[in-house]
Amino acid sequence: MNKKGLAILMRVRMRPSDSNKILLSPLAEKLNRVAPDHQANRSGGSGMEPASEEGNEQTNFSCRDRRPFELVKESMHSAISMNKTEVLDAVLNDFTEGYFSLSAERRKALLLLLAKEYDLNRAQVQELIKQYLGLELPKAEEGNVVEESLLSAFYRIERNLRHALKPAYEVLFERLNTHPGGLKFLSILRADILSILAEENIPSLRALDSYLKEKLGTWLSPATLELHQITWDYPASLLEKIVAYEAVHPISNLLDLKRRLGVGRRCFGYLHPAIPGEPLIFIEVALLKTVAQTIQEVLWDDPPILEHEATCALFYSISSTQPGLAGINLGKFLIKRVITLVKRDMPQISIFATLSPIPGYMQWLLSKLASQLKLAETDDATHTSSDQSGSSFCENILEPEEERALLNLSEECKAMKNGMEVMFNLLTTNDSTWTNSPEVLSVLKPPLMRLCARYLLQEKKRGKALDSVANFHLQNGAMVERINWMADWSEKGLRQSVGIMVNYVYRLENIEEYAQSYFSTGQIHSSDDILHYVKEVEA
Amino acid sequence: MNKKGLAILMRVRMRPSDSNKILLSPLAEKLNRVAPDHQANRSGGSGMEPASEEGNEQTNFSCRDRRPFELVKESMHSAISMNKTEVLDAVLNDFTEGYFSLSAERRKALLLLLAKEYDLNRAQVQELIKQYLGLELPKAEEGNVVEESLLSAFYRIERNLRHALKPAYEVLFERLNTHPGGLKFLSILRADILSILAEENIPSLRALDSYLKEKLGTWLSPATLELHQITWDYPASLLEKIVAYEAVHPISNLLDLKRRLGVGRRCFGYLHPAIPGEPLIFIEVALLKTVAQTIQEVLWDDPPILEHEATCALFYSISSTQPGLAGINLGKFLIKRVITLVKRDMPQISIFATLSPIPGYMQWLLSKLASQLKLAETDDATHTSSDQSGSSFCENILEPEEERALLNLSEECKAMKNGMEVMFNLLTTNDSTWTNSPEVLSVLKPPLMRLCARYLLQEKKRGKALDSVANFHLQNGAMVERINWMADWSEKGLRQSVGIMVNYVYRLENIEEYAQSYFSTGQIHSSDDILHYVKEVEA
Repeated sequence: MNKKGLAILMRVRMRPSDSNKILLSPLAEKLNRVAPDHQANRSGGSGMEPASEEGNEQTNFSCRDRRPFELVKESMHSAISMNKTEVLDAVLNDFTEGYFSLSAERRKALLLLLAKEYDLNRAQVQELIKQYLGLELPKAEEGNVVEESLLSAFYRIERNLRHALKPAYEVLFERLNTHPGGLKFLSILRADILSILAEENIPSLRALDSYLKEKLGTWLSPATLELHQITWDYPASLLEKIVAYEAVHPISNLLDLKRRLGVGRRCFGYLHPAIPGEPLIFIEVALLKTVAQTIQEVLWDDPPILEHEATCALFYSISSTQPGLAGINLGKFLIKRVITLVKRDMPQISIFATLSPIPGYMQWLLSKLASQLKLAETDDATHTSSDQSGSSFCENILEPEEERALLNLSEECKAMKNGMEVMFNLLTTNDSTWTNSPEVLSVLKPPLMRLCARYLLQEKKRGKALDSVANFHLQNGAMVERINWMADWSEKGLRQSVGIMVNYVYRLENIEEYAQSYFSTGQIHSSDDILHYVKEVEA
Repeated sequence: MNKKGLAILMRVRMRPSDSNKILLSPLAEKLNRVAPDHQANRSGGSGMEPASEEGNEQTNFSCRDRRPFELVKESMHSAISMNKTEVLDAVLNDFTEGYFSLSAERRKALLLLLAKEYDLNRAQVQELIKQYLGLELPKAEEGNVVEESLLSAFYRIERNLRHALKPAYEVLFERLNTHPGGLKFLSILRADILSILAEENIPSLRALDSYLKEKLGTWLSPATLELHQITWDYPASLLEKIVAYEAVHPISNLLDLKRRLGVGRRCFGYLHPAIPGEPLIFIEVALLKTVAQTIQEVLWDDPPILEHEATCALFYSISSTQPGLAGINLGKFLIKRVITLVKRDMPQISIFATLSPIPGYMQWLLSKLASQLKLAETDDATHTSSDQSGSSFCENILEPEEERALLNLSEECKAMKNGMEVMFNLLTTNDSTWTNSPEVLSVLKPPLMRLCARYLLQEKKRGKALDSVANFHLQNGAMVERINWMADWSEKGLRQSVGIMVNYVYRLENIEEYAQSYFSTGQIHSSDDILHYVKEVEA
């Protein structure tokens, strides 16, 4: 691409929400004619319209607004109930375009309608299970022939029951999946569902979401995903997606992107044939001499070494592009396949590591500190003054010398109840002033590093690492190698994990074993280096 | 390809069963070491082995034979129960290769074991449905909020029930589907299942087959199939599949194939990305001036017209290559997509028609004649001699003048009871001598053509055309245009349909409408030309 082309590209600020905008089809135009300004008009309804059936929130749909909703509803109904293919394509187009033309509120109404009115037939299910309960389970001891003939009634009802348990909306999902652009549409639809559910827990919509999620998981199985090495030769329309969706270390412009695709770096993405021109997930790799400790080293403008001198491939960013695919593990095979690919092209590379954010650390730490401070307060109120650790939930998460150092920071600190209060106050000041004081930093570093190791290695949820990025890499068979102080000075890095980053390492010979033991027992493998932070406490 | 290459290719007789042969992997070699000649040894077992548990047929597996079976069984178990990916690939390879090394008898034993031991957990299903029956269906009249909260228990149990109703072998199918070569393996597995079921109806195996068929139908949806125009430039390994699988008009050798891919002809096939180098279904097209009446015109060595003079694209052969995909309608969108493609390249083509076999005609006709002759006999026995048409099932399927002409053919014929007996005897002579006598032909033609039209237009099974090829094209939106006397003189053509072939025509403007009306009401559209055969009778 020449400089002019690039300049044109860079003038546009690219955002993910652009993907919702599509060229208008005949139906969409029709809709616009019916309600040329229904989005703008939303809040100013006349007094004539019937009350919203949903009854929640402030939106009473205007008369003008109701027509297109009915049209989209009808096309949705046709899309589920029609049987012939050519007509069906047109109907599915009508439906998807009509859906895009609806306001967020109408989309919600439509999705609720889909979840409730196109659910399964409960009467039919109950009829079948009554039949099923009437059957007697044949004994395993009986002869094979008798058993087979007894079982055939089971097979029949089980099959019917399987079909009866499919909600009517499955047809819509299946048809959209095989419709051009339909898989992408379903991903947008699910993103809408998730944002509704984040506001309000609606059981019927949650059931629909769980069904759709399972379907999407099948359709986006690793076998259907194509691994691409994304280079500067890729279409700008695809590259702008990388810029828009990079979630870990934002890309400021296309020139920044060009560096990330240039010498000493690699970018790989999974594409699905039904969603062309848009990677569903992508990973950025830097070729280095050693495992980097700070993100600044990785994002240097000019890589300091020649590619053939590199011995380490460092994964420094993994981003998924589809909010509607949340919870579907697209990265499962990505890292392993990327390692294989890099190893094939550059056999001298022997270390595969990450420099990863710890997105949940600060949140965990602050809530831990806050709850301890609260418990201490309650204890103060209920117990006689100098009683020691009355509640069993009470825990001073600081070591004695850390406590001392924090209280000794200033007169102001000395006046506080304990070290945890000092720490909490320091970390929750709005302007992160603590990062400018070498003294404060040196006092904060020991407890922050130690607690970070504890967070990564010991804090679990349902037997898995509490931190989502940790869980991702451990699932994939990595081990926790090292945590790095002040590795990411960006505002986001400070906010998420007080600037600490972590190196996960993939040791080729152990990937399978580690993934397996993490999967079955939740065991987290780690280096001695990081283990000593938590061992000290136990000793 | 040069002549030498071609000659080498042509020395090999290609058969579909070649696809079962694969290079031996470590496990297969191990199996061979354990039982170097288990196939040859099968019938000559020593007296030492335990009695076969299956108890049917003559095969008592020898001790030598039992080891590999156990190994394959173990790898199958691992393939279902293991959780990690890299190991899983090796296990799936072990399983598929082990399966190929088994004799037909052992495969059957393994498939039965899969169907029975890896079925669903009935106790769990019963537990869940008891919980389900304990729930009370909320009334639709109640307020939305109450209803939602009541339903959430339904959603939960329904979801669990859905999972509980999945047999354990689904995991094996799912994993094979995403394993390289796995989809092809599943198609071979199902071909084995179908041939076992053709011999013996085993309910558990039938349930497994119906489950697998449904899965395959999803995985091979039209959206996943790629349409290819297959030319002489395609790999020989793919072209030999065309030769091997051409089911309608066998291809005698690669030179014959070259003609079918050459000037004035086209060949299109559907390929699936997971089964590379092998079309799942393919269609052969001839470019002609008019709709051909005989297959001889179509298969001429040198097409008599230039391509740009052609106005008709004639589909003269559609073959599917995978017996294991029986019952899965792969051709559904094929014809429509081929028409679109041909129309785009050659806009002067305005007629899209087929010259199709009528595979079920002769079978239907002979059984009709036989049953009528039998009914007549029974009537003779029960009624007094000259009573007329006593049984309501009795029907003289011949017109009076046809009856007369048949009886008048010879003295021998005159001695027979009626025209149907003459016809039945003529058609069932071993050597098709009737085709050599112009006199016999001229007498047979009127009833055979008339009854053929009746067979195509009026004989139905569950509301659909009885003839499988007719059903295929009518489903796709074709109409029955014309039947052609003595259109296929091949032994197969005479045996299937006394040499009659039929032209179905696809009128672009009517395809959807015809497909829809056939789908919903079973209505068969036809030309006046063919309709007069059946109208005459009614008049």
